[in-house]
Amino acid sequence: MNYRMIRNLIGKILVLVGLLMIVPLITALIFKEGIRNIISYLIPMAFLIGIGLLMGYLFPAKDKRMGVKEGYVIVSISWILMAFFGCLPLLISGFVSDFFTAFFEMTSGFTTTGASALTTNELLNMLNNGGKSLLMWRSFSHWIGGMGILVFILAIILESKEGSMLHILRAESPGPQVGKIVSKMKISSRILYLIYIGLTVLEIIALNICHIFDSNMTFFDSLIMSFGTAGTGGFASTPASAGLYAPCSQYVIATFMIIFGINFTLYYWLLIKNFKDVLKNEELKWYLITIIVAVAIITLQIHNLYQTFEEGFRHAYFQVASIISTTGFSTVDYVSGTQGAWPALSLGIILFLMLCGSCAGSTAGGMKQSRVIILTKYSGSKIFNMISPRKVEVIRLDGKPLDKKVVDSTITFFVLYIIIIVVSALLISIWNPNMASEDATPITMLTASLSCISNIGPGLGAVGPAGGFANFSWLSKLLLSFEMLAGRLELFPILILFFPSTWKKGI
Amino acid sequence: MNYRMIRNLIGKILVLVGLLMIVPLITALIFKEGIRNIISYLIPMAFLIGIGLLMGYLFPAKDKRMGVKEGYVIVSISWILMAFFGCLPLLISGFVSDFFTAFFEMTSGFTTTGASALTTNELLNMLNNGGKSLLMWRSFSHWIGGMGILVFILAIILESKEGSMLHILRAESPGPQVGKIVSKMKISSRILYLIYIGLTVLEIIALNICHIFDSNMTFFDSLIMSFGTAGTGGFASTPASAGLYAPCSQYVIATFMIIFGINFTLYYWLLIKNFKDVLKNEELKWYLITIIVAVAIITLQIHNLYQTFEEGFRHAYFQVASIISTTGFSTVDYVSGTQGAWPALSLGIILFLMLCGSCAGSTAGGMKQSRVIILTKYSGSKIFNMISPRKVEVIRLDGKPLDKKVVDSTITFFVLYIIIIVVSALLISIWNPNMASEDATPITMLTASLSCISNIGPGLGAVGPAGGFANFSWLSKLLLSFEMLAGRLELFPILILFFPSTWKKGI
Repeated sequence: MNYRMIRNLIGKILVLVGLLMIVPLITALIFKEGIRNIISYLIPMAFLIGIGLLMGYLFPAKDKRMGVKEGYVIVSISWILMAFFGCLPLLISGFVSDFFTAFFEMTSGFTTTGASALTTNELLNMLNNGGKSLLMWRSFSHWIGGMGILVFILAIILESKEGSMLHILRAESPGPQVGKIVSKMKISSRILYLIYIGLTVLEIIALNICHIFDSNMTFFDSLIMSFGTAGTGGFASTPASAGLYAPCSQYVIATFMIIFGINFTLYYWLLIKNFKDVLKNEELKWYLITIIVAVAIITLQIHNLYQTFEEGFRHAYFQVASIISTTGFSTVDYVSGTQGAWPALSLGIILFLMLCGSCAGSTAGGMKQSRVIILTKYSGSKIFNMISPRKVEVIRLDGKPLDKKVVDSTITFFVLYIIIIVVSALLISIWNPNMASEDATPITMLTASLSCISNIGPGLGAVGPAGGFANFSWLSKLLLSFEMLAGRLELFPILILFFPSTWKKGI
Repeated sequence: MNYRMIRNLIGKILVLVGLLMIVPLITALIFKEGIRNIISYLIPMAFLIGIGLLMGYLFPAKDKRMGVKEGYVIVSISWILMAFFGCLPLLISGFVSDFFTAFFEMTSGFTTTGASALTTNELLNMLNNGGKSLLMWRSFSHWIGGMGILVFILAIILESKEGSMLHILRAESPGPQVGKIVSKMKISSRILYLIYIGLTVLEIIALNICHIFDSNMTFFDSLIMSFGTAGTGGFASTPASAGLYAPCSQYVIATFMIIFGINFTLYYWLLIKNFKDVLKNEELKWYLITIIVAVAIITLQIHNLYQTFEEGFRHAYFQVASIISTTGFSTVDYVSGTQGAWPALSLGIILFLMLCGSCAGSTAGGMKQSRVIILTKYSGSKIFNMISPRKVEVIRLDGKPLDKKVVDSTITFFVLYIIIIVVSALLISIWNPNMASEDATPITMLTASLSCISNIGPGLGAVGPAGGFANFSWLSKLLLSFEMLAGRLELFPILILFFPSTWKKGI
């Protein structure tokens, strides 16, 4: 374990977060918010930058080598620190009075979950009584969190000279010239960044064009929604979430949610005109097919509940895009809205999408399509094996045979995932004195747990799109916060485990 | 594949089921039921015995060797045939008019599930208007089904001279003298039978003693409840299930449910005074600890809902025993009874117990405690591995290191189990025109699917202890029937796979 390197990198991340807090600070200045808000950013900024500089640049590590374990530790500690320092503005400004609520909220922000523990009153108070900058900070934390995933990949690749993730951009590795690959990778990692920023800007522009038809889509709202979409987070500025906006804005947001759920490497491949690998990508195929099938079935089931077929289709399209990309915006309350709950199959599909999530290598959470594909193929081959025990079927992905270790680690991931969801659902059920007994149902607990570990936001029951996590006890909030982190952290070791080179000797 | 052997054995099973139908026939004669009821047994009996004799004894197989595959085929086909012929009395007697309801009901009977698709009216009609023999048949099918598991073990062991399951009774295998073991096994298999019959008789006697304090516990009821308990089935004679009876009867039934959920080999060990292996048995330990912890927590949570602490404890004890043993009787409606729904944690524990099930080698269904133990140890070792990748931890059960193949097959089982539950829950949600929209919730569909594959009976939501499967469409009933069979069938290959000798060459 290279402790000095860990300290250095965490320090650098803290400085970065401190600098990024300038965004809500500027927002506060633009909206002429009170001095208390200004101070509530300046204090954590001072801490973040001060501590960050000390950690990051005092006694720099001589040995810059890093392994999987180091990466793991860096992400987990920095995410917790980010949530801790990040929740200070909410507390200092006085808009949130409970520490655990604020910590939950910012963990939810940085992990790009979007589950909110704020009450409707607290949210409306922020919106209407001079706390817009806090809403901006909350949503901007999604964007930082989403970028954080890329930061992490970058950190691992650039700082570890061994390059344990050399294969992540295998598009550009025609030969085994390591030096050339590493230098190319520096460029392509920057390209991933630029794609992330570029797509965000594209959505902001698109939403501002929508403003022509949609008076509710102000510039402020376009930023909130774009940051939430890009990080696949899901914090909106009002309790109505995306239901506030006109159809045209909803279509734009839904489409961008789908776009941000796709593996970013594919966009890079598109840029370098490597269309062959994009077309061969099975995960993308499954992702799009899942979306089309889910939207089709749900539209058929719900279009009668709404005035026009278009409205039914739009709600189906938006909700499917939101859940599969683990964003969590909503245009309609499908659990207890005025149209009544959606039929069981539609809600079942929502639940199924919650479990699946979208593509690996995107900013999204959840199990990831590629794992679902591997699990499906594995189960298929096992059933096939029961019938013909002597034939051994090789599991392939993107046409290439999968390493047994990748299959094994996927199955381990699945087993752990299910166990964590079930055990956490039991634990958060234990003690919630503020929750009404009709709200404390097994489906609420189960989907709260599933939603948090998959970094989605809403679930079913009392944590449905119109509900929230406000009534959970501080202990449950803390547990759910750790589940959000676990969902985010699980991602990395597994992402690394996916690549055979990780299994070679060294670091 | 030894087709002749398969045909022979299925034939013998059919003859046996035909002969066992004499029990409801005698019941019909005792209760002086109409001639139509008598005929409704005689017709299927004629078919079963006639076809059975032709299949079983015409052209007997010369090569009596059998493998896993043969055993698998025999069980699946004979279970389907049993359900098919078994549902004829319900239809011919006119008490049930829909084929799929009758088929669902008897599949539920023979697979010892106990999920009922009868409406309350149909059930009361049977009870009060001369259909008691049908209720007896329904419950007796549980007992046959429970015994069927032993039949299957017997069939595999005795008919296959190779003895692929030699290790099932490893208690009595001190040395590798195969001949001696096989002859001993014949005896000990008969002992398993006798234990099953003995325990059933014991429960009947105990319940008849309870009759002194409990006028509702008639001799007829004592048979119904004992057959349901022994097979871990769960069909009761009234919509109130075990809620009809006095506390003393409820305690007796609950205790016997726990007893029938324990591996039968342990009773055999007790009989031959092999106490050491019983005490060393980890599965029993976990099973009893799970029961104690679950009863304690639920009692603490619910005792305020009832008039006395004893009543709360009794309901907790009975429901935990019923669900963990996958029986499915109930003394109270914990989902929507007069006391209101139980708190989320209690229902969450019920849900968790549904997933676990009881001990391998019992008549119960579900995942089985031993698999839960292996999965828990596996997850523990994997998490341990993430921290210290270089140390390899061996997973042990009952003090002995587990074969990697056993761990692998357990994990495969778990993955398949979860996938089947989720996919089936989606499929049965598709089309149920008779179900009220407030009943067709994801929790209903999910627990219906879980309850059927685990061979339990009740779930939560609309399929809770006071609800039922009557409102599902014929297509959903058919799918749930196959799920019940799958739950039962999955058991065998896996039970076989658990023993290393299965993996040796030959048969």
